[in-house]
Formats: sequence, structure tokens, C-alpha cells
Amino acid sequence: MRDSLWREVVAAQERLVGVAHKTPIFTCSELDRIAASTVFLKAESFQRTGSFKFRGAYNAISCLSETERACGVITHSSGNHGQAVALAARILDVPAIVVMPEDAPKVKRSSAEGYGAKVFTCNGTQEAREKTTRMLVARTGATFIDSHDDPRVIAGQGTAAAELIAEIHLLDVLLAPVGGGGLISGTAIAAKHLLPSARVIGCEPAGADDAFRSLARGERILDFVPDTIADGLRTPLGANTFELIRQMVDDIVVVPERAIIDAMRFVWERMKLVIEPSSAVAVAPLLTGEFGGGGERIGVILSGGNVDLESFFSALPRVDRVPPVS
Amino acid sequence: MRDSLWREVVAAQERLVGVAHKTPIFTCSELDRIAASTVFLKAESFQRTGSFKFRGAYNAISCLSETERACGVITHSSGNHGQAVALAARILDVPAIVVMPEDAPKVKRSSAEGYGAKVFTCNGTQEAREKTTRMLVARTGATFIDSHDDPRVIAGQGTAAAELIAEIHLLDVLLAPVGGGGLISGTAIAAKHLLPSARVIGCEPAGADDAFRSLARGERILDFVPDTIADGLRTPLGANTFELIRQMVDDIVVVPERAIIDAMRFVWERMKLVIEPSSAVAVAPLLTGEFGGGGERIGVILSGGNVDLESFFSALPRVDRVPPVS
Repeated sequence: MRDSLWREVVAAQERLVGVAHKTPIFTCSELDRIAASTVFLKAESFQRTGSFKFRGAYNAISCLSETERACGVITHSSGNHGQAVALAARILDVPAIVVMPEDAPKVKRSSAEGYGAKVFTCNGTQEAREKTTRMLVARTGATFIDSHDDPRVIAGQGTAAAELIAEIHLLDVLLAPVGGGGLISGTAIAAKHLLPSARVIGCEPAGADDAFRSLARGERILDFVPDTIADGLRTPLGANTFELIRQMVDDIVVVPERAIIDAMRFVWERMKLVIEPSSAVAVAPLLTGEFGGGGERIGVILSGGNVDLESFFSALPRVDRVPPVS
Repeated sequence: MRDSLWREVVAAQERLVGVAHKTPIFTCSELDRIAASTVFLKAESFQRTGSFKFRGAYNAISCLSETERACGVITHSSGNHGQAVALAARILDVPAIVVMPEDAPKVKRSSAEGYGAKVFTCNGTQEAREKTTRMLVARTGATFIDSHDDPRVIAGQGTAAAELIAEIHLLDVLLAPVGGGGLISGTAIAAKHLLPSARVIGCEPAGADDAFRSLARGERILDFVPDTIADGLRTPLGANTFELIRQMVDDIVVVPERAIIDAMRFVWERMKLVIEPSSAVAVAPLLTGEFGGGGERIGVILSGGNVDLESFFSALPRVDRVPPVS
């Protein structure tokens, strides 16, 4: 099974050539010093639409038949996956619908519309989103693109780790955030094929640690209320990603909220990279001493850089000053 | 004269090999679309100490004799030049003193100290800084490293544009911010040698437009009170940089404060790069339509990424949440 999963990652890589960005890899001597390791950060914040989600969305839509493409695609997401589906569909000339809660930030709505997607709103419950989506699927025949549990999406996400390993070669450990589990599953598929002895660690916010608890219990926990700043990681695991993580991920680390914010600040201040809180979840264990310490070579997937900066910029002076008279 | 200036840039490049970072160059399709040009941004935010200043400081200190090095170096700066002198001196095993105003942010003081410099404080006037510096020079015999008017500093700063041109080859226009004038002078020296037909444009905040007004008047304006968010550009031109700019820079663009903030936000949000306001001054003319529009190839020096993020991060929740009970 692992071989066939890996072949899907390779196929995704081929589909993404010339479409997805080959994102840069950053290092930081201060981070290496703190973690007593050599750390390589794959900055998917520089991926198209600002997160790794473009890889999976584009791969999934590429796999559709002509007939399916003609009917379009649909997803529900107010976040990175919605933007990714919108842009991937536009590139592939496929109509796209994104279902969003009524209270989603305007900027997310206009961003999806900017990529040419039709946006439908509904109330914010999971039930309402699913009902609206089903209704629209029935009406349009559009194919639903799940954000994390679709095997084509998982294969696409695995291309980030595959690129990192192709460039850095040897890694002892790979860290990636865990939300719905698509990224960590794809990362594990790539890593276990290319570097069988490397450990793959999922990083989860304490305020949405369903993967940690699901693995401990041996079944998926679905009835939890996430409460974390890492807005990209509030989704529960899917049935597929739960199985993949159980089989291929070595451990799940649970990261306190404070450590997430501290890690985000470290990356902004020291590395000059705008990353979102979800990305910081995979950096935090290196700053808190949870990982590293033995000179390991550690790869980190920085998942994205989509942060609401309104509060920062609205605090800056907005009035044009009059230049002093000479 | 231009040839000998260029030879100093080449010598600086040789001194900086393996010491300064070769910073990455970024592009942005949305910026290209808005500017109707192809724009290449040289991200000196990823330079050591977070700004281009390291290049000039290291080059200047490298040029000192053994005797001079033994007596150490001194500068007055609460900003990027102070950090740059501190780190460059540490690398070259030279004692360093940085004179700062008493009210300089603690983080700047501890950063310079972190690089091993001794920090002396005085009151915030230019007069007090110069007096304290003279007193310390008399006491220690340290060599003063000027932030912008020292020819060795100017040559060092020119290596950023030289690197950009070596990688991108053809450019029609180069944009760089103007404060004391060291960066734009070095940029002009490199560009006029490597790409004689390229236009070199200095970008200055409206709240500190002394270069623009000095050129118009034909003599340096020194008695102005800067009032701009671009804290790196509040310094007046030096005697050397004024002459170099007069001879080699094609034009100075004055950028309103609002356009600086808008450009900074664009680069953070769309390009996921933390840049400081001074850097945004050289991006703004591309977003406001002042430059571009004709398919030009435009190079921009993003001077640095040292921003006080305290207000942003203090607005985020700091309390660890209790994970929900499963």
C-alpha cells in the first residue's frame, strides 16, 4: 500500500510542475542554536494562495474527468483550502463554488471571488455548511473537493515534503502541523518512502488536540470544540487521515497556545517571515526543547502565511504628514 | 573616479564572501500586474542583523589596520547600523562601542550587547551623541564608523545591487530608499558600472525629504526635523553621499506616509515578507503608479526587516487555554 501511496505523490509532483511554486527553504542560526540541531524550514507561505493547500487542491482537480470538470467543483472552507480550490479551478478552467459561513471575513470572500469562484454563504454550523454543499452539488453536479481526506489532496500535500527531501537529502526528523491531517499524512507518505529511518512528527495545538486524543483512544474523536489561535488546525481528522497517521506517523506533539504565539513571533522577528499560527505549531517544539538537542537534521513544513494583519496596520498612523518647511 | 569607486565595491564583495548572506530575490505576480512591469526584490531583510547595513559595516572594519583594530571601533546608532557594527566587529574580533540615546528601545540595546558590543547611553540630541562619541574616541582610540558617509561603508552597501544585477542581468530601473544616502550611493556605483543605461532612483519619505530638497537647492539641507514612520531614513545626507547622488542618481521620488504604510502592508500580506517601513518606501512608487507601466524590468532593494512587533503580538491572546474535555 505504501508504494502505491508514494506513486500518487510522484504523479502529483508531475502534475504540479510549472504550476505550483517550488518554495524556498530557510535556515536560522539562532534557531539551530536554541534547538541544538540543524533545522530546514520549507516555506509554503510562499506557495500560490499563501499555503500548501494549493498543491492538494490542484492535484485533486487535475484528476477529474472532462465530464466532471464541466460540472465544476465545490468545497466548504473559509480558509486556505477555499482559496486553493478557487485558484486551482481557475487555472484548470473549471467552475468553482466555495461555501462559507456568513460571518467569514470579507477579505476571504473577496479573495475567493478574486480567483473567479462563486461564493455561497450559510450559517456557521458544520451541519449548515454540509447541507448547503449537498444542495448545491444536487443542483450543479459539481464534484466535492474535501480539504484533507481526499487521497488526491493528500498526495498533493505530500509533494512539499518530497521537495524538501530532494533538496536537503538527509533528515532525521520531519515536523508538520496537524489539522484535518492531510499535510501530515502526505508528509509521512513521502518521508517514509524517501527516508525510511526518519521520524515523522505531527504537531497539534493544545486547543485542538483531537489527533493526539484520537490515537490514544484508538478511534476518532469528533465531538470536540476547538479553541486555538491556529485557525487552520481546528478541523477534526478524517477517516483516511486517521488511518494514515495511525500507521505512518511516529508521534503527535501537543503544543500549548503560548508556545504557538512565541514561535510565531520568533519566526517573524528573527527570520523575517510572515507565517500563520498554524505554521508556528510545527516550530514551537524546537524552541521549547521538546525536539532537537542532539544535533539532528530536522525538516519543518511551514504550512502558510495567511494572517489577518488588520489590527497591526490599523494601529499605525494613517494620516499623511506635511513635510517640514525647508 | 567611477572606475575606482566600482573597484572598491568589487573589493568589498571579496571581503564579504562567506560572511554576508547572498540574500534571496523575490518576485510577485500581483505586484507585476499592478506595476505593469517585472519587479525583482532583493530581500536584505534576510541579511545578517536583518538589514543591508551589515555589508558596509563589515567592509569598513575589514579595512582597518591591525593597530586600529586593537583599539576597537565606535559608532552612534540605535538602529540597524549599530547592530551591524556590533556583529561585524565580533566576527572580526574587534572591540565595539555603540552609543545610543537613553530612550532607545531596550531590545535594541540588548541586541547590540548580544553581539558583544559595549553600549553607552547619552541624551537623545545629535549634539550629545557626537560629544559622547568624541569623548569615548579620545579615551579608547577607537575608530569611528560612520553609518553612511564613509567610502568603505558605501562600497559595502553597493554589493547588494551588484549581487542583484549578477543574478537578474538586465534591469531598466533600480529603486532604493534614501536616508543618509549610503545605500543609494553604493547602488548607483554598482548599477552605473554594470548597467550603464539603467536608471537609478532614490526613494525618500515625504516626512524626511532632505535629499530631494538638497538636490533642488544645490546644497545640503541639514536643519530639518524628520517626521516619518520610516525610522531608518531620518538621517540627513552626508557630504560624500550628497556629491555621489548629485552625480550618479537619476531622480529622487518623494513618497507620502500613507503610501509607505500601504506598501509595507502589501509586502507583508501578499509576499509574506516582514519588511520595515524604510524598505516599503522603495516599493511604494510601484504601487502608486509613479514607476512602471511600460513593461520595464525593475530592481528594488528591500533594505531590511527590523520592525517592532510588540503592538501586534501584545494584542494576541496570551493565556494558555485549557483543552476541551473529550
